[in-house]
Amino acid sequence: MFFLLDAFFATSFLLNQGLEKTLVQGEIITIGNELTSGMTLDVNAWYAAGRLTASGLRVTRITSVGDDYPSVSRALKSAMEASRFVIVTGGLGSTEDDLTNEIVSKALNRPLCLDKEMFAIIKRHASMQGTEVCSSLEKMAWVPDGSRMLSPEGRACGFSLVENEVRLYFLPGVPEQMRYLIDHVVIPELRKLYKKLPVTICRTLKVYGLNEPHIAEIFRDLEKKTGKAVLGFYPHFPENHITVSLTAGDAREAVQELDRIEKQIRNKLGTALFATGNDSMAEVVGKLLVAKQLTVSVAESCTGGLIGHLLTAVPGSSRYFLGGIVSYSNEAKMELLGVRAGTLEAKGAVSNETVQEMAEGIRNRLHSDLGIAVSGIAGPEGGSKEKPVGTVHVALASAEGTVSRKYRFWGNRQAVKLNSATMALDWMRRYANGDPLLPGI
Amino acid sequence: MFFLLDAFFATSFLLNQGLEKTLVQGEIITIGNELTSGMTLDVNAWYAAGRLTASGLRVTRITSVGDDYPSVSRALKSAMEASRFVIVTGGLGSTEDDLTNEIVSKALNRPLCLDKEMFAIIKRHASMQGTEVCSSLEKMAWVPDGSRMLSPEGRACGFSLVENEVRLYFLPGVPEQMRYLIDHVVIPELRKLYKKLPVTICRTLKVYGLNEPHIAEIFRDLEKKTGKAVLGFYPHFPENHITVSLTAGDAREAVQELDRIEKQIRNKLGTALFATGNDSMAEVVGKLLVAKQLTVSVAESCTGGLIGHLLTAVPGSSRYFLGGIVSYSNEAKMELLGVRAGTLEAKGAVSNETVQEMAEGIRNRLHSDLGIAVSGIAGPEGGSKEKPVGTVHVALASAEGTVSRKYRFWGNRQAVKLNSATMALDWMRRYANGDPLLPGI
Repeated sequence: MFFLLDAFFATSFLLNQGLEKTLVQGEIITIGNELTSGMTLDVNAWYAAGRLTASGLRVTRITSVGDDYPSVSRALKSAMEASRFVIVTGGLGSTEDDLTNEIVSKALNRPLCLDKEMFAIIKRHASMQGTEVCSSLEKMAWVPDGSRMLSPEGRACGFSLVENEVRLYFLPGVPEQMRYLIDHVVIPELRKLYKKLPVTICRTLKVYGLNEPHIAEIFRDLEKKTGKAVLGFYPHFPENHITVSLTAGDAREAVQELDRIEKQIRNKLGTALFATGNDSMAEVVGKLLVAKQLTVSVAESCTGGLIGHLLTAVPGSSRYFLGGIVSYSNEAKMELLGVRAGTLEAKGAVSNETVQEMAEGIRNRLHSDLGIAVSGIAGPEGGSKEKPVGTVHVALASAEGTVSRKYRFWGNRQAVKLNSATMALDWMRRYANGDPLLPGI
Repeated sequence: MFFLLDAFFATSFLLNQGLEKTLVQGEIITIGNELTSGMTLDVNAWYAAGRLTASGLRVTRITSVGDDYPSVSRALKSAMEASRFVIVTGGLGSTEDDLTNEIVSKALNRPLCLDKEMFAIIKRHASMQGTEVCSSLEKMAWVPDGSRMLSPEGRACGFSLVENEVRLYFLPGVPEQMRYLIDHVVIPELRKLYKKLPVTICRTLKVYGLNEPHIAEIFRDLEKKTGKAVLGFYPHFPENHITVSLTAGDAREAVQELDRIEKQIRNKLGTALFATGNDSMAEVVGKLLVAKQLTVSVAESCTGGLIGHLLTAVPGSSRYFLGGIVSYSNEAKMELLGVRAGTLEAKGAVSNETVQEMAEGIRNRLHSDLGIAVSGIAGPEGGSKEKPVGTVHVALASAEGTVSRKYRFWGNRQAVKLNSATMALDWMRRYANGDPLLPGI
C-alpha cells in the first residue's frame, strides 16, 4: 500500500523473506558528526551492509554516532555484545575531529603505538602530493596496541583487532577507500574464517517500458515458482530493476537454481528486459551496435544533448556514435538539419513530421546507418491542450525508411528528458535486436 | 589526507565544532531488513537528521535494525535512555513484515487499540485506489494504547506516544510521507515544546576552479574570524561547496552575523564563487545570459552533449541556448562545423586551432552571440605522451574574437567529461560577468 515511489531511493517489496537465522552476525558503526547532523548521506554503511549480506554474512544493526568518546565507546561496546564482527568506518583521518584511534585505545584499554608500515605509507603519499609530514599526519599511524595494519597495495589504510573473540575492522570514511578495504580485505578474511558460510548470489534484471503494476502482476504470478529465491523490486527511474537472490550451501547449487528462476522471469519480461547485471542501457546499445556493425547519429530537441551524453559515457563509443545536433530552436532545425519551414509551420516542432525530417536530416548529414531524433515538450512551460507537457515524438531513420511515434511522459523536466533519451536508446537497442519498437500513445 | 573524493558523497572537514552540548537531544531509529541488508540506502535518517539539526535539535545516534522484535525492542529501549525524543521510521505498512505497531505494543506494554480516525483514512485511500479494505490494511489502524494519530490533511499517517517523558514519533518508511510528517508535525511540535531552542541557519557557497589545498588555506585564514560559525567543506565534483552555519538565540541575530562572515569568505574566494544557495552552475549562467541578453551555441567533442544537457536542464533555457553540434568524429567536425581538413591534419582534433574553428563554426551557423567549443581526450583510451588522457581544449568565440586554453583534467571518463562541461559553463559565466577566464596549463 502507498506506493508513492521516490525516483531514486524507493522502498522495496520483497517476497519470501529468505534470511537464515543461522548466519554469522555482525554490526556496522559509522562515525562522524556529518552523519548525525544529516550533512552527509551514509553511503558507507549501505555499501558495507550490501556487500556483507551478499557474502552470506548477516548485519543486524547499523549505528551512526558523532565523533566523541561517549558515543563511539558506547556504540562499540554495545555492538560487541552480540556480534562475531564489527565494521567501524570514519574518524581515521588527520584532522582534529578524527578521534577513532584514541577512542578505541581508551575504550579497549590498549595504548596507542606507532605502526611503522602505516607511517611509511603516509610519508609516501605526502611526498607524492608535495606535502610535509606534520604531526597531524603522523597521528594517523598511532594505532591501538595489537592492531594489524590493513593496507593492500598501499591503496587505503585501516586496521583490525580481535577483542573477546570479536573481530573489529576500522576503516577510513572516504567511500572509495572504505569500499576497497571491504572488498579486498574484510570480506575475503571473514569468508575464510567462516568457511561454511552459505553463498548468496544476487542477480539484477533491468527493465524498461513496463510499469510498476505490470511488474507487480508478474511478481504475483511468480510467487509460487521461485522457491527459496528472494525477489526485489527497485524503481530506478525511468528503468525498473528486479533482483533475484538466493542463499544456498554452495555456489554451483545457487547458480543452477538461479538460472532456472531467471529463465522463468525472462519469459515474463520479454523484450522489456534489456540487461542482466551491471550494464547500463547505453552500454547494451553500444555492444549491440558494435556486434551488428551499425553507426548512429542523433538529432535532439527537448533532450538537449542528453542522448549524446549517455551514448558517449561508454568508453569506445566513437566506434559507432558519429555525432549529433542539438536543434533547440526552429532555426537550428532548419539550418542544421534541413527541416522544412513548411513542416514546422503546418505541424509544429513537436510532431511526427518534424521529428522524421530531423532523423533523416542527421542521418544524411553524417552518413550513419541510423538517425534517431527526439522532439518534445519537457516543461514546465510550453505545453498546450493539444500538446501537453510531456508530449514527445521519437523517430528512427534507416535504409528501410523512417518511423516515428508519439509518447506522453510524466514527471518534471528532468524526468521527461531522461525518459525521452532512454526511449531513444531503447529504439536503437530494439532496432539492432530486430525487436518491435515500443508502441506510443 | 588521502583526499580521494567520491563524486557525490564525500567526507567533510569541519572547523570550530560549534554544536552546543545544551541542545535538546534525540535519536533516530530506522526499521527494515532492506536497510540492514544494504538493499536500500537510508535516506530517511539522513533527511530527518538534517531537518532536526537545522531546527536547533541535536541527533546523537542513528540506528538501523531489521523488522524483528528483539532488534527493534532493544533499539527503542536503548534510545529512550538518554533522549528527549526518538523518531522511528518504517514498519507501519500493511505487509507481513511491517511489525512496528506490534513490537512497540509489546515492548512498552501497551495493548493495541483500533484508531477510528486512522481506519477512516485508510478506507478512504483504499477506495480511491479501488482496493478493498482487507485485514492487512485494517492492521495499520491498530496502534498502541495512548497513541496520538498524526495525519495532517490525511496525507500521511503516523502516531506519537509519550513514555517516561520521552516523546516517541512513529513515522512511515515511505520517504515522501516520512518527510511530510517530519516537516509538518514533528519539528513544529518539538520547537513549540522547547520554546527556547536556538535557531541554526546554514548557507552554502559554491566554488569552481579552486582546489582543495587552496580552500583549506582559506579556511585556516578564516579560523580566527568566524566566531561561533561552523564552516563545512563538501567536495561536489567538480565543484566545491562551503557551508557556513550559525546557531544563535534568534533568527535576526544569526542572519546579521552570517552576513558579516559571508562577506569575509566572499573576499577570499573572489570570482571562483559562482553561487550562494541552491542555484546550479547552469542556472547561474542562464540568469546572467538573460540579464545580459546574450545567446549561446555549443560545439562539443569529448563532452558528447553534456554541455547542452546541463544548459537545457534549466527551464526556459530556450531563451538563450540556440543549439549545438556534437562533432564526435573528424568528419562531423568538418561537415557540420566547417573545421578545415588541414587544421585537423596538422594540429589534430585536440588542439587550440581545432577548438577555435569549432567555436567559430557553431557561432556562425547559429548566429549566436557566443560560440563555445570543447575538444579533448576523455579516456580511458586515446591518450598519448604529448596528449595524455584528460587533455581538453576550450574555446570561446564572440564578436571580440576567439580565445582558447588547454586544460589537464584528472579522473576517469565521467570526471573528465563533467569537468570539461563545467569549465565551458564557467567560461560563459565569466564572459557574461566580465571576469577573467580561468587560466589553463
